[in-house]
Amino acid sequence: MTLKTLSAKSATALDKELMSSGGFSIDQLMELAGCALCFPGWYMTLFTDMTLSPATAADASTNQVYKLHPPSQGREILIACGPGNNGGDGLVAARHLYHYSYRPTIYYPKQSSNELYQRLATQLRTLGVPFTDDFPNALKHTHHVVDAIFGFSFSGEVREPFPAVIRALAETRVPVTSVDVPSSWDVETGPPAEGPGKGFFPHALVSLTAPKPLARFFAGRHFVGGRFVAPYICEKYGLELPEYEGVDQIVEVDAKTGQKL
Amino acid sequence: MTLKTLSAKSATALDKELMSSGGFSIDQLMELAGCALCFPGWYMTLFTDMTLSPATAADASTNQVYKLHPPSQGREILIACGPGNNGGDGLVAARHLYHYSYRPTIYYPKQSSNELYQRLATQLRTLGVPFTDDFPNALKHTHHVVDAIFGFSFSGEVREPFPAVIRALAETRVPVTSVDVPSSWDVETGPPAEGPGKGFFPHALVSLTAPKPLARFFAGRHFVGGRFVAPYICEKYGLELPEYEGVDQIVEVDAKTGQKL
Repeated sequence: MTLKTLSAKSATALDKELMSSGGFSIDQLMELAGCALCFPGWYMTLFTDMTLSPATAADASTNQVYKLHPPSQGREILIACGPGNNGGDGLVAARHLYHYSYRPTIYYPKQSSNELYQRLATQLRTLGVPFTDDFPNALKHTHHVVDAIFGFSFSGEVREPFPAVIRALAETRVPVTSVDVPSSWDVETGPPAEGPGKGFFPHALVSLTAPKPLARFFAGRHFVGGRFVAPYICEKYGLELPEYEGVDQIVEVDAKTGQKL
Repeated sequence: MTLKTLSAKSATALDKELMSSGGFSIDQLMELAGCALCFPGWYMTLFTDMTLSPATAADASTNQVYKLHPPSQGREILIACGPGNNGGDGLVAARHLYHYSYRPTIYYPKQSSNELYQRLATQLRTLGVPFTDDFPNALKHTHHVVDAIFGFSFSGEVREPFPAVIRALAETRVPVTSVDVPSSWDVETGPPAEGPGKGFFPHALVSLTAPKPLARFFAGRHFVGGRFVAPYICEKYGLELPEYEGVDQIVEVDAKTGQKL
């Protein structure tokens, strides 16, 4: 059994379909994506840390999906946002993390004039969430990094100021969770053989809607998020989505087969 | 200690503030509200029913907030939607409930030409969620009703076709959860002394952002939802919001004092 994936072309068409026949706005989709991003590791661990008895927490700990980064491992989360939709997902995730008692810091060097992204950044500023220009220094003081720099439409060269950032992500020992695509990876062929992303293998990957072909080259912890895709869209695009549990917005899958763990 | 509430005038101003200085769009706010609505009772019970061991479920059962309506009590949920924002919140909630394995049915007799509400209805149609015109019949076949007819801006007369609907809600033995305001209640003075809403006391109330003055007249199970209000807004409007736990979008409060249970 091999991992079933969605090409960049199909992923673009699917997003368009969600916003035409599906009736979704970009605001809604980004909110749902950012919400999903906060679930791997942050969700049940927070819950068990704070509200359940030790016996219950021990039981929940058998559910590996929730052990990626409990707050007891540190609340500082550095979120690196690129100029497009991937960065927007990161901004939404940062807001949820703030409300879940984490302390997010945003690195967002290429702020778009896009109205939605500007509003997402405003939402964070009203919460007092800090924005930093100094990525290397922020990396020294964080417990986890969210890589929301480039998504499935990335191709070609990594532009300034991101080469140094991606090189730092490849070298750091701080765990990194990538949003949909490890930044600088080719959506079809995966990890680059040279350039700043050479050797960049994030700790975890959250595929949005469905895994992209690059996921075949990813051996870390793999989650699928986006619990809003209608059955008719799954059918049209040949998606085989894993079954979500309870009110989870995310499910951990086997990196090789894409089957639910 | 008495319940601290937000007047209709302040609630309107607060919503406007969220969309100006706060940077939120109506799409986002409605998504967050609808998400919060699905949490009381549906959230952890679903989770315990489906994924935890019996011992863990027993432990979680001590957490009363999650016992409002577990799926084991029946998956049919009838959602009565009014023509405005309250109805929009109900449409979003219905979509989440569908994805959480409930079977929602929508009663939405006054469908607005508003573009957002139309898209929310489209999202449900693409999922195959049924819309009904026959409220009395649907009420006979449901396990729970969500009352998303009128919100805090309601005043005056209940217009057609809602008088019979609200009368049915007052008479039914099926549990009803009201969104923000029990429909037909006055936002300041609470339950009407006459008219179709006379004697209408829903089983549960989910106050969005903060309880409205009418909540002082409500003796059922009371939840507060909307985990996205920035501290500067709480301060400006004198809100004392209860502390949310884990990644909950909702918290149960004492009906009299507004304090977290």
